[in-house]
This record gives sequence, C-alpha cells and structure tokens, in this order.
Amino acid sequence: MTETVAPTAAVLIIGDEILSGRTQDVNLNAIARFLGALGIDLLEARTVGDRQGQIVDALNALRRTHDYVFTTGGIGPTHDDITADAVGAAFGVPVAEHPEALAVLERRYGPGEFNAARRRMARIPQGGSLIANPVTDAPGFQIGNVFVMAGVPRIMEAMLQDVAPRLRAGAVVHARTIRVEGVGESAIADVLRAAAEARPDLSFGSYPFGFGGDGPIGTQLVIRGRGAAEVDAAEHDLSRELRYLGINLAVTSSSQV
Amino acid sequence: MTETVAPTAAVLIIGDEILSGRTQDVNLNAIARFLGALGIDLLEARTVGDRQGQIVDALNALRRTHDYVFTTGGIGPTHDDITADAVGAAFGVPVAEHPEALAVLERRYGPGEFNAARRRMARIPQGGSLIANPVTDAPGFQIGNVFVMAGVPRIMEAMLQDVAPRLRAGAVVHARTIRVEGVGESAIADVLRAAAEARPDLSFGSYPFGFGGDGPIGTQLVIRGRGAAEVDAAEHDLSRELRYLGINLAVTSSSQV
Repeated sequence: MTETVAPTAAVLIIGDEILSGRTQDVNLNAIARFLGALGIDLLEARTVGDRQGQIVDALNALRRTHDYVFTTGGIGPTHDDITADAVGAAFGVPVAEHPEALAVLERRYGPGEFNAARRRMARIPQGGSLIANPVTDAPGFQIGNVFVMAGVPRIMEAMLQDVAPRLRAGAVVHARTIRVEGVGESAIADVLRAAAEARPDLSFGSYPFGFGGDGPIGTQLVIRGRGAAEVDAAEHDLSRELRYLGINLAVTSSSQV
Repeated sequence: MTETVAPTAAVLIIGDEILSGRTQDVNLNAIARFLGALGIDLLEARTVGDRQGQIVDALNALRRTHDYVFTTGGIGPTHDDITADAVGAAFGVPVAEHPEALAVLERRYGPGEFNAARRRMARIPQGGSLIANPVTDAPGFQIGNVFVMAGVPRIMEAMLQDVAPRLRAGAVVHARTIRVEGVGESAIADVLRAAAEARPDLSFGSYPFGFGGDGPIGTQLVIRGRGAAEVDAAEHDLSRELRYLGINLAVTSSSQV
C-alpha cells in the first residue's frame, strides 16, 4: 500500500577510505536505485570519516529531517570500525553485545574461533534490531529510523533485501529519457524550459554526454514524475517541440532513475 | 611551500541525477585524489539535489567550517542549472553576466549563435573569478573559498588544473598498504589495534576484500600519516607482528591514498 506523500531518505557514507580517494563509493548509487524502486525520495547524502563526533553530528542532523537514514561502513571487527558506538552516542543509548548477533556469529566461527574481535561485531546499540547478512553473517542493525549497513558493496546490497520489508513505500517515480544526438544543451534549452514551466509537477533534467571524446556529443533529456500518464504526455509534447526545431530524436526509453 | 597545519576541504555534489541513481558520481573520488596530492585534508562531502534552499544551506555550512569547498554540477545552460544563483544567494550577492566569460563564450559560438541559453553560462556571482574550461569553454568560478565546477567528469578534472595554483598546499600524506591474503579482518584485529594505539599520530585502516566471490578473500591494511619515516617504521613493525602470527604477507605498496 502506498500513501500520497512520498517518504524521504538520506544516506550517510562512513569511511576515511572514501575521503582519501582510495575507494570509489558505489553504495550511494545502489541505495538510490533501491529507494527509487520503492518510491522513496532520496534527498541528501553525506560522506564523513571515521571520527565519532562527525558521525554523531551528521546522523543526528539527517535522522531528524528525513523519514529514513541509511548508513554504510564501519561495522567490522577492527579498531577503526566505530559506527555502532557512534550510533549509540547519537541516540544516547549504551552499546552492548546482542544475544541474537552473538549466536549467529558463534555459529559461524565455532566456539574456539570466536575471539574478541569477532565478538565486537555483535555489539549493537540498545533497542536495535538486527539486519541479516547472508554473506559473512556479521549483522547490520536498525535503530529507530536509522539502518546501519556494511561498507562492502556485496554485503550492503544483501542487507538491503532484509531492510526492504521494513520500509513504507511511496508511489514510484516514472522517468522517460529523450536522447538527442549531435545537439548540445544550449540548442534545446528554451524548449526544455518552456516544457518544465508548463508542467511544474514534473522534473525536467538535461544531461550532456560525449565530452569524453568517444562517440557523438548530445544530451539526454529526462522527465520524471509520479503520474505515468503526465510523464508520457510531457514526453510526447517535448518530442514534438524538438522535431519542430528540426532535431532528430534517438530512442526514448522508460526507467525509474 | 607548506605549513604545519594542513588545509581542510569539503565537497558539495549538486544534482538530482546522483540522488535518483541515474548517474554514478565519480567526481568526489577525483577531487579526493587531487586534494591528497596537495596535502589538503578532505573532511566531508555532501550530495544535494537541484533545489536552491538545499544548496544554499549546505554551502553555507561547509564554507564556514572548511578552508576550501569544491562544488560540482549545475552550471550548464538549462533551466535546471541553478548553481550560480544558489551560490550568489549563499554569499548574499547578485549574479550577473561576467564580461570575461561573455567574451570567451561569444568567441566560441560566434555572434549569431550566442543565444540566451548560452549567455546564461556567463552569469557569475558578483566578486567571482573564472575557472577555465578548456573542454567546452563555459567557465566555472571561484568566490571566496568556494570553487564551482562542472558536473561532467572530463570538464571537472580539467577545471581542477586551473584551481590547483590557487590552493595552499599541505604536507602530503604518505600511505603504505600491507596486503594480507587468506586471512580475514578479525584474525588480525588485535595486532592492528595495538599498532594503532602505539602510534596515535598515524591512521590505521583495515579494508577486507574478496567478498565478490572472485579471487581470494583478504584484508588490506593501510597506514597513513604525514611523516614518511614514521609510516615506514609502522609498516615494518606491523609486518613483523603479522609474521609472528604466521601470516604470509603479500606485496606492500606505497601511495598517497
């Protein structure tokens, strides 16, 4: 069931390795697509380092202004994995070993191999519920409207499957893309602006391509909105206007992004 | 010349297409590496949509707390390119056509082809100076400690070359990576924690790999710091401790990230 007003979300990427440039983040894009399919509006993302004060401040700012917050990174067994403690501090609750997490991890490693570092991955802020990790078992957790997930992309994506049923879905956004080749943005800017002004409920984006030198230059025009019929009508009208200008349109396509 | 305290920086990624999941951002990583080579500490990044209020709030928060802010996106000719106006609003200054930008663009397009949409790309907040764009000529701009750049990666990277001479450099961070194969993080967490506690001036990161299923699992241990000799010594000591545990070390490598 969906409601009229779409839920909102923010993402908090945690990790020095992103800010040093060592690691190219791909989790934001995966979460964005996941939320798009659920009709949840992702409004903001922040990336912070492995510093508790910075994590706490960002998390408290985001969780008070969005329906959902998704964090990635910092829940492993090493000393630089401080997300659980930072989330506990943000919520003002203690962090302790969670019996269910302990059981899952002990089963994985066996009693003799379940060392202190591994036990560390069972530490969850009070009141948190687990997010299943089918790849390496070490769980993420949910507390309030915050979902705390791993930084390793394959694990993060698996965790999203356990998170999905806990979220309120919104009406899905429909997107239509008109691909215009051989014409730069500034040649079609006036027509695009008029189209956007005529339909204020929709968003009209313009994304140039081809500056890498391989292949033709051109522009992708993207119309997005929650009403499929209105999006289709806008695509029809804009295509007609572009043809009036003598512009050849390449394929149009539908998607959710 | 470098100073003792490293300059700090933040990045502001502007664009609905990042938050919808349509586009995978790669500019944050490129800026992070660029700043690393200059010894400037990138402390935070934010991604916001094409909404003026959101851009203004984020920019004002970031520019007051960091030495430099780098923005990407929203400086093209179409109606959804609102970054110049948002930056003007954040600084409380009017936005007007910049004579030098007008001249550059008019030269590119020729008088007959220099339409209103193209003139729009010459609009710069008062007091701003241009950032050269050798790819498509439409300039970025600097105002105060804020550098406003294009979202197209190839153009953004070209603009960084014009920005570099305007920045105060810091002492470069040296990084050494120890690659441990066949051993997960939790097997070496104690040794790593002890190493980190022994050298509080350095940062010790632990990044597992191999959960994609292709190739061995393992961990990359990364030691970072501004003193090359101390980083080397830490790498030497940590390698010795790992060998005591019977762990075979793969190649170690140096880098800046």
